[in-house]
Amino acid sequence: MKINSNYLNLKDSYLFSLIAKKVNEFKQQNPEKNVIRLGIGDVTLPLVPAVVDAMHKAVSEMGSADTFKGYGEEQGYGFLRQAVCDYYAKKEVTLDISEVFISDGAKSDLGNILDIFDTDNTVIIPDPVYPVYVDTNIMAGRKIQFVNGSADNHFLPLPDEKTEGDIVYICSPNNPTGAVYTKEQLKIWVDWALERQAVILFDSAYEVFIRDESLPTSIYRIPGAKKCAIEFCSFSKTAGFTGTRCGYTVVPHELVRENVALNKLWLRSQTTKFNGVPYIVQRGAEAVFTEEGMKQIGEQIQYYLENARIMADTLTELGIWFTGGKNSPYIWLKCPNNMSSWEFFDYLLNKCSVVGTPGAGFGKNGEGFFRLTAFGNKRNVTEAMERIRKIIL
Amino acid sequence: MKINSNYLNLKDSYLFSLIAKKVNEFKQQNPEKNVIRLGIGDVTLPLVPAVVDAMHKAVSEMGSADTFKGYGEEQGYGFLRQAVCDYYAKKEVTLDISEVFISDGAKSDLGNILDIFDTDNTVIIPDPVYPVYVDTNIMAGRKIQFVNGSADNHFLPLPDEKTEGDIVYICSPNNPTGAVYTKEQLKIWVDWALERQAVILFDSAYEVFIRDESLPTSIYRIPGAKKCAIEFCSFSKTAGFTGTRCGYTVVPHELVRENVALNKLWLRSQTTKFNGVPYIVQRGAEAVFTEEGMKQIGEQIQYYLENARIMADTLTELGIWFTGGKNSPYIWLKCPNNMSSWEFFDYLLNKCSVVGTPGAGFGKNGEGFFRLTAFGNKRNVTEAMERIRKIIL
Repeated sequence: MKINSNYLNLKDSYLFSLIAKKVNEFKQQNPEKNVIRLGIGDVTLPLVPAVVDAMHKAVSEMGSADTFKGYGEEQGYGFLRQAVCDYYAKKEVTLDISEVFISDGAKSDLGNILDIFDTDNTVIIPDPVYPVYVDTNIMAGRKIQFVNGSADNHFLPLPDEKTEGDIVYICSPNNPTGAVYTKEQLKIWVDWALERQAVILFDSAYEVFIRDESLPTSIYRIPGAKKCAIEFCSFSKTAGFTGTRCGYTVVPHELVRENVALNKLWLRSQTTKFNGVPYIVQRGAEAVFTEEGMKQIGEQIQYYLENARIMADTLTELGIWFTGGKNSPYIWLKCPNNMSSWEFFDYLLNKCSVVGTPGAGFGKNGEGFFRLTAFGNKRNVTEAMERIRKIIL
Repeated sequence: MKINSNYLNLKDSYLFSLIAKKVNEFKQQNPEKNVIRLGIGDVTLPLVPAVVDAMHKAVSEMGSADTFKGYGEEQGYGFLRQAVCDYYAKKEVTLDISEVFISDGAKSDLGNILDIFDTDNTVIIPDPVYPVYVDTNIMAGRKIQFVNGSADNHFLPLPDEKTEGDIVYICSPNNPTGAVYTKEQLKIWVDWALERQAVILFDSAYEVFIRDESLPTSIYRIPGAKKCAIEFCSFSKTAGFTGTRCGYTVVPHELVRENVALNKLWLRSQTTKFNGVPYIVQRGAEAVFTEEGMKQIGEQIQYYLENARIMADTLTELGIWFTGGKNSPYIWLKCPNNMSSWEFFDYLLNKCSVVGTPGAGFGKNGEGFFRLTAFGNKRNVTEAMERIRKIIL
């Protein structure tokens, strides 16, 4: 028996374990200090009442023979797929219910979607990047090329005359940089993909944080995108579902390669290797899209965006360069005084007991940068900014 | 962009759609007839009270900031992995918590596990078989060899001197045949695998139906199995979780190939492409293993086994050859009068309005056989057996 030897090419990531180690050592040596974590990539606010109520109701249904639900369709219940279509209709994007696949989260689908593509494709990945894009392709032995994010392009890389590949990942609003592509910029990627019959994997997990109405919350706002893009979204950050697990993936019928509809391939993949999302969770997700649910999650998003604003205002005041902080829960800042990512990490931890995430952990172009997240609580964020102001001003 | 052309080699399965079509036509032509379905592969009894209570509690926890849960470990919460270890301890199988991976069901893991193996391996699959084993390997372009189940070996094929391969699927109690391997028979497969460093993928989704204490409910009851087998199990049939989605996979640390522990590869695969099972569902699954939960699901299993017994008694009385019906929710019978699978399907439907599943849908060796399932209700099962007795006696 031969193992998949591509796995041996994966690098172990020590980013979060090294952060934990350093923070623990600091706490042992400084037990009196109140450490504030601004590196957390997980939501902290609980599920909203509309979701909780819907899930209680669904749990009760599962306990009664009359209303019990066994296997559902692998691609999700019609009620939830229709709710997703209605949500897109408000964005002026028309989807058919059969173009929507309910999943247990964007991470699963972003990994599993690769199964429908030949391993002999070249993949284009922005640097810095969410590490899963890279690792899932290393596991399959695909050729990877990076496009470079930098302060010069505000960490929104675009293709140039040398950019060639078959599959490209775009995440907007971006993790880790918080940067958001404009319609004009996304159009450049869409045109590039259409020209060479490439496929865009568009990760829109943070779309709900976009408040600037001129910015696209779906790639399908760009003409032609249905012929070249698959869109992945999630309730994780939208409605605090990181521990509840639900997302959705859109594969338009117009997306055809080598005379085969990718929708048909993905349907076959999901019906063969997946058995759907729990009924209880799908009812919870459906409640997110109700008027009450949208209002309640809107308040949570506003809370996180207010945290982001507090951080952004402080950085602006201090003259520190950054992306994000608006239309995104992330802030990506240039480390002051040309410090490296880890130097700045140690500096912040030792001088003001604040923890963030070194940008170097997201790719070589992340060196010299640093990620802050808005998922903490407002009092802590305000306090952390006070402390940073004192050491940097 | 090149698609994964292996998908083009998949055959469309018309089994269940053809059954539905025939049943619908029959009902239209015979609106007065009460059609009884004994082909259903899904549970019908609701979740037990212990599970429902645990899930209500977990939903409430998710709605409160103090008890809210965000991302959990991809491989599952410690409380559930420990409960699985304790369950195995009762079977006299010792597992470490790090050998247990909580999943959203056996189907997902049986498909996804293949990612850790090179595509250049030969896979051995019994015929007849659960179609997912075949399709997932066709998708990866692996070479498949079949071992033949037949009335002669009671649909429990064993390796012979010509059987060569790298990965072998064993499902016991079997879907679709209901047949259960003895310890002595499983030992032949384990010894075969150890001899050639092959890996057994052991599907034990129906283990809870085994009431004969001499039969193994885990492959790890066989000496040496930890060095050659991965075991997949599920709460779907154990506790009615087909619409609630939870399972677990055991990858022993002793299972090493090409100097790499497969546990480490699977951990990497799951942490990269999966984000864990909902907290709410894991709390429900944990409740299955409590004293109360085990008692309640025990009663459900007994109910289904009683249905199986009623069918088995009738077939015995009628002199029809079958496997299963004990220690399994499935009965696999030889069609009377040398009818083909579909001839018998039409015969049963037209003569007594009973629906089952043609064995030919599970592989070429299924031709001439027929599957009945015990997941219906007792009154219907009894009535169906009365009708069959009348037309066959």
